[in-house]
Amino acid sequence: MSDAATPGEFELIRRYFMQDVEPACRSSQVSAHQARAGVVLGQGDDCALLAPSPGLRLAVSVDTSLADVHFPRDASAEAIGHRALAVNLSDLAAMGARPRWFVLALTLPEVDEQWLDGFARGLYGLAREHDIALVGGDITRGRELSITITVHGDVPEEGAITRHGARPGDLLAVTGALGSAHGGLRAWFDGQRDEHHPLVQAYLRPSPRVGEGMSIRHMVSGGLDISDGLLADLGHLCARSGVGACLEAGAIPLDQALVASLGEAQALEAALNGGDDYELLLALAPDQEAAVRQALETLGGALHVIGRVTAEPGITGVVSTGRGWQHFHAQDQQAQAHHGTGVAP
Amino acid sequence: MSDAATPGEFELIRRYFMQDVEPACRSSQVSAHQARAGVVLGQGDDCALLAPSPGLRLAVSVDTSLADVHFPRDASAEAIGHRALAVNLSDLAAMGARPRWFVLALTLPEVDEQWLDGFARGLYGLAREHDIALVGGDITRGRELSITITVHGDVPEEGAITRHGARPGDLLAVTGALGSAHGGLRAWFDGQRDEHHPLVQAYLRPSPRVGEGMSIRHMVSGGLDISDGLLADLGHLCARSGVGACLEAGAIPLDQALVASLGEAQALEAALNGGDDYELLLALAPDQEAAVRQALETLGGALHVIGRVTAEPGITGVVSTGRGWQHFHAQDQQAQAHHGTGVAP
Repeated sequence: MSDAATPGEFELIRRYFMQDVEPACRSSQVSAHQARAGVVLGQGDDCALLAPSPGLRLAVSVDTSLADVHFPRDASAEAIGHRALAVNLSDLAAMGARPRWFVLALTLPEVDEQWLDGFARGLYGLAREHDIALVGGDITRGRELSITITVHGDVPEEGAITRHGARPGDLLAVTGALGSAHGGLRAWFDGQRDEHHPLVQAYLRPSPRVGEGMSIRHMVSGGLDISDGLLADLGHLCARSGVGACLEAGAIPLDQALVASLGEAQALEAALNGGDDYELLLALAPDQEAAVRQALETLGGALHVIGRVTAEPGITGVVSTGRGWQHFHAQDQQAQAHHGTGVAP
Repeated sequence: MSDAATPGEFELIRRYFMQDVEPACRSSQVSAHQARAGVVLGQGDDCALLAPSPGLRLAVSVDTSLADVHFPRDASAEAIGHRALAVNLSDLAAMGARPRWFVLALTLPEVDEQWLDGFARGLYGLAREHDIALVGGDITRGRELSITITVHGDVPEEGAITRHGARPGDLLAVTGALGSAHGGLRAWFDGQRDEHHPLVQAYLRPSPRVGEGMSIRHMVSGGLDISDGLLADLGHLCARSGVGACLEAGAIPLDQALVASLGEAQALEAALNGGDDYELLLALAPDQEAAVRQALETLGGALHVIGRVTAEPGITGVVSTGRGWQHFHAQDQQAQAHHGTGVAP
């Protein structure tokens, strides 16, 4: 990062990615914001120093977002910054963890400060909303725009929502409408460039269910976030828990804008296989349903029961194939499911 | 990562990056190795769950290594795997932290399983040597080979080596010969492809000073690892500590193979500005010199005093410029120092 005409890595970090560090605190002191976040030593040394609370578990996850693979390169820089952090926060939400700290590795094909300013605005906007502190980073020059974020959260011992906890007889439920992000991606490729369009917004600016995950972590048996698509992620849940599932396709919540845009059959297809929804998929004992629903509604959310966990492996259900409704076994679908979301719809 | 002909991301992770997870433990259980490493839940869920010891600080750092920017693309996969983790471990060494856990984000232009096998061998070889556990990862398909690693270590409260602790009157010292890595990079570009060549090995397979950092962390005032080059990194130390430095160029340790390869003047230039050495640069009170030296020698290492911390800002010293020896002020050199190491020598 050292062209004569462009600022170096250190200067870029100082300008864009030390925003919660007051100038007076840019040496060894941390800002009040960072101290509240448990940061003992922030950016500027070889490592950040963090103080997780005693008795808690640390949850750690990493995700890379590549231009034109995980997001359209021509989306606004602000949306790209928001989205890169959102998909990582969603992994903390999926464990019921409280967001604490993140580090950022950014590979840039060029130094475009207007772009960096927008990116940082999107990143910090979401970071402040969820009270997660940026504590380190690395900026490199490369051919391809690439954003890798590692997030850290804490969760009480025995308190995490895991993929291995689903039990036969559990209800399967999701925290919101599915398929909208896929519909938004399709709309984007059809030329829709209004980032406030509800479907486009669902794709570019997902809202990770962080508060939801924390508020219900003690009430559910297991769960994860829906990033690869409902069927693929349900497959992960079942595989790790050693169970199967039966879906009620008619119960899967679909956004009205999605149905209006794609028709009901394709909307359901988007909900099943589209991915990028970042809603939570939960398994819970039937006697917990009322409590989970109430906790989610308190946060302005909702609980949609969409099926049940079975002892027999495999995912069965009733879905539209475009040729009418029929039974299916989702192993076939899983084999087709994309791993790592492509931006081509 | 989902061509019909190639395994998907999950399969690649299972094959290459769950090596310390016994097959019986690949669901929710952790292996004995992982449990010893403080891993409560390893790969396969949305986040890893980790249990840092009470009373300790967590040290976290991230570094990206890009093909043909940070390492030559035609180096062996094993060396690339080793090096990508080594540069991150060196950041833990620079804080005196004990390595605990790391996550890996890998972007691959193609799925070459022979390459992945070698890469994983280099990565795990070094990981096991330093008892650090891989606890999560992300593999994406992109145009450019890119490796981002986030490392986590622990260090006692008040025990970390920081960049802001250097004090006027402190000795400046390094833990080993400098410039060899830069000499190795030049040899590589001159066609030397023997990875056991001592200079090439210094570049491709650096030995992070992890044990050294842990053993002396309570004895030194401050320090960091030398990744950008002695002058640039000394500049970081001085800037963060609000001090200056006076170097004795004749005291800077140079490898005999480097001097034989480049001549003395260029060898010193490589030591001052070459980077990629991953030795530690330490500031210590004179009355600690004997204890630090003994601790390092116990580990088979050495301490080389190369100068002194001054109250006046700026770095002064006597160096070769190729036109004979003269005094210099290193601010000029710092402005030229590369940020992010290029592989072009």
